[in-house]
Amino acid sequence: MAYFRNQIEAMHGYVPGEQPQDRRYVKLNTNENPYPPSERVAEVLRSFDVNRLGRYPDPVANRVRDAAADLHSTDRDHILAGNGSDDILTIALRAFVDQGGTVACLDPTYSLYPILADIQGASVRYAALDDDFQHTPKLFDEVRGASLLFLTRPNAPTGVPMPLGDVRDLCDDFAGIVLIDEAYADFAQDQADELVQEFDNVIISRTLSKSYSLAGIRFGYAYANPTLIAGMMKVKDSYNVSMLTQLIAEAALRDQVHMHANVHRIRTTREATATALRELGFQVFPSETNFLLARPPVTAAHFKAELQQRGVLVRHFSAPRISDYVRITIGTDDEMATLLTATRHILDGD
Amino acid sequence: MAYFRNQIEAMHGYVPGEQPQDRRYVKLNTNENPYPPSERVAEVLRSFDVNRLGRYPDPVANRVRDAAADLHSTDRDHILAGNGSDDILTIALRAFVDQGGTVACLDPTYSLYPILADIQGASVRYAALDDDFQHTPKLFDEVRGASLLFLTRPNAPTGVPMPLGDVRDLCDDFAGIVLIDEAYADFAQDQADELVQEFDNVIISRTLSKSYSLAGIRFGYAYANPTLIAGMMKVKDSYNVSMLTQLIAEAALRDQVHMHANVHRIRTTREATATALRELGFQVFPSETNFLLARPPVTAAHFKAELQQRGVLVRHFSAPRISDYVRITIGTDDEMATLLTATRHILDGD
Repeated sequence: MAYFRNQIEAMHGYVPGEQPQDRRYVKLNTNENPYPPSERVAEVLRSFDVNRLGRYPDPVANRVRDAAADLHSTDRDHILAGNGSDDILTIALRAFVDQGGTVACLDPTYSLYPILADIQGASVRYAALDDDFQHTPKLFDEVRGASLLFLTRPNAPTGVPMPLGDVRDLCDDFAGIVLIDEAYADFAQDQADELVQEFDNVIISRTLSKSYSLAGIRFGYAYANPTLIAGMMKVKDSYNVSMLTQLIAEAALRDQVHMHANVHRIRTTREATATALRELGFQVFPSETNFLLARPPVTAAHFKAELQQRGVLVRHFSAPRISDYVRITIGTDDEMATLLTATRHILDGD
Repeated sequence: MAYFRNQIEAMHGYVPGEQPQDRRYVKLNTNENPYPPSERVAEVLRSFDVNRLGRYPDPVANRVRDAAADLHSTDRDHILAGNGSDDILTIALRAFVDQGGTVACLDPTYSLYPILADIQGASVRYAALDDDFQHTPKLFDEVRGASLLFLTRPNAPTGVPMPLGDVRDLCDDFAGIVLIDEAYADFAQDQADELVQEFDNVIISRTLSKSYSLAGIRFGYAYANPTLIAGMMKVKDSYNVSMLTQLIAEAALRDQVHMHANVHRIRTTREATATALRELGFQVFPSETNFLLARPPVTAAHFKAELQQRGVLVRHFSAPRISDYVRITIGTDDEMATLLTATRHILDGD
């Protein structure tokens, strides 16, 4: 059919991690958080007057913006609310990159970026990470000239963050917009907040999907200077965040104690799991996220399929750089014990 | 700042109807539904297990698609779920219109379309309606050559639908995609469903914001042939509809009795209000929506401001074709009585 734009006709859509319905799985494949969200979220739903749903939500989500702004010791003019942080990525791409323009990102990284570039009709410049998934000095040249750089920190699916000093040098050197995708930053040792103050070309995106146990509500936000936020406001859908999502996100952002307690549990489980996997012969990258990228002592695709038969889902990517690895989301200690037991059986050939 | 694309820098964002917080108003300015949503919506919230929010929602919203498909006696392959019908409009624009391409719409019509075109970097071809807000025979020529035609039926802010036979002729004649925006179609005498079966270039968009009293959840959908739906799927955000919105939308779509009862009440109130306004000297267009476009016997901007002082919000547009009119959303009978009382005072100079 000749109706579609050429690049839409030619492209493939994003493939989310599988959500098989055939049985109950220990679900370690989409980087969700195994712990419940804040009790304040339940309270929002309990006390919500359903008749309010007849009205439009606040188009700019000011109460959530205030809650997010407080976290960064700033004001709402520095915050843009999104329907998940994917919405923030799309808004940035549409704000800063022309059709025929250029986007840059790491390789490997979050597989959505090149698809968003396809939709916009932009090309992608990749900065290849080395075999330890660290950036190389060539990165500065490789991304130069792009209008927008997606810098995932910590990176996915590797779990490895670029050192903050190097990010600072990059923001200083790069002529376009640096969007630091901090989807996993609550699990990391440091965050890039200060770079928003230092540079006029830096946007940080955050999500409530991972550290706040709220993938279901679709909420993310951008933190940047007011000029960038005001321009991106023009691009967003007029009512892009639902009323319930706004109320729930605000409540969750106001309960930092709950979030940090869960993050602490996940980090502890992460380190124990990494150690156990290494003892079983896996190569495991040091992770600052809620997942581990691990190379099994057997074929990764085989290992993933065997795990699934045993009721455990992990993610395997067919992309060449990472096809020898599986990405394992950190669940509860019980879930990780199930994973490790199944892994021992697989390695023993049971 | 040189970071933004030129057209983003140059454009103005969409201005939603005002939501003043200074006092309680009789709110007749944003075409919301004054009646509660289906009791099944309340039941969804009562029985919802908040711990589910840690998981991602179904990326393609299949259960809601099934509910929408049943309404059109079709299957889910004909349905695309959106974060409000504005999301559907954006997806269509990005799927079918290149930067530098052309969109067409009526004049006057929904003021969001030219803004969506601005964001995409597309130009807009307008087909001017006559003084009774009916299309003219020139329309076919005026829209020709555009990649996408937004045809609002019934039209907003006029309330007037294009006759279905003329829409059929237009779909047959137009070489690009005809997106029939049926945001208000539940309040109308007929809908354009059959055109999706007859033509391969027709998309119908629907929303739950008006007839289902669910503006707060942000849910709309597209109904089109599976080829068009599959292509638009590539363009949508991967998880564009939140978990709660999916559950609530499904419940509401499955309760047609409730929706039709409220639509019936609103239509009855609409006709009574139109009669009363005409008796007060207003010119009122025959409406097939949940609002009336009316020309007051005094200046429209003055009338709107006077109403606001008396606690009643209506919408006034400054665009030249419609600046003599106000758009009045149909509320409850009590709310319309308040409007009419305030109107009499204004006309009497009280």
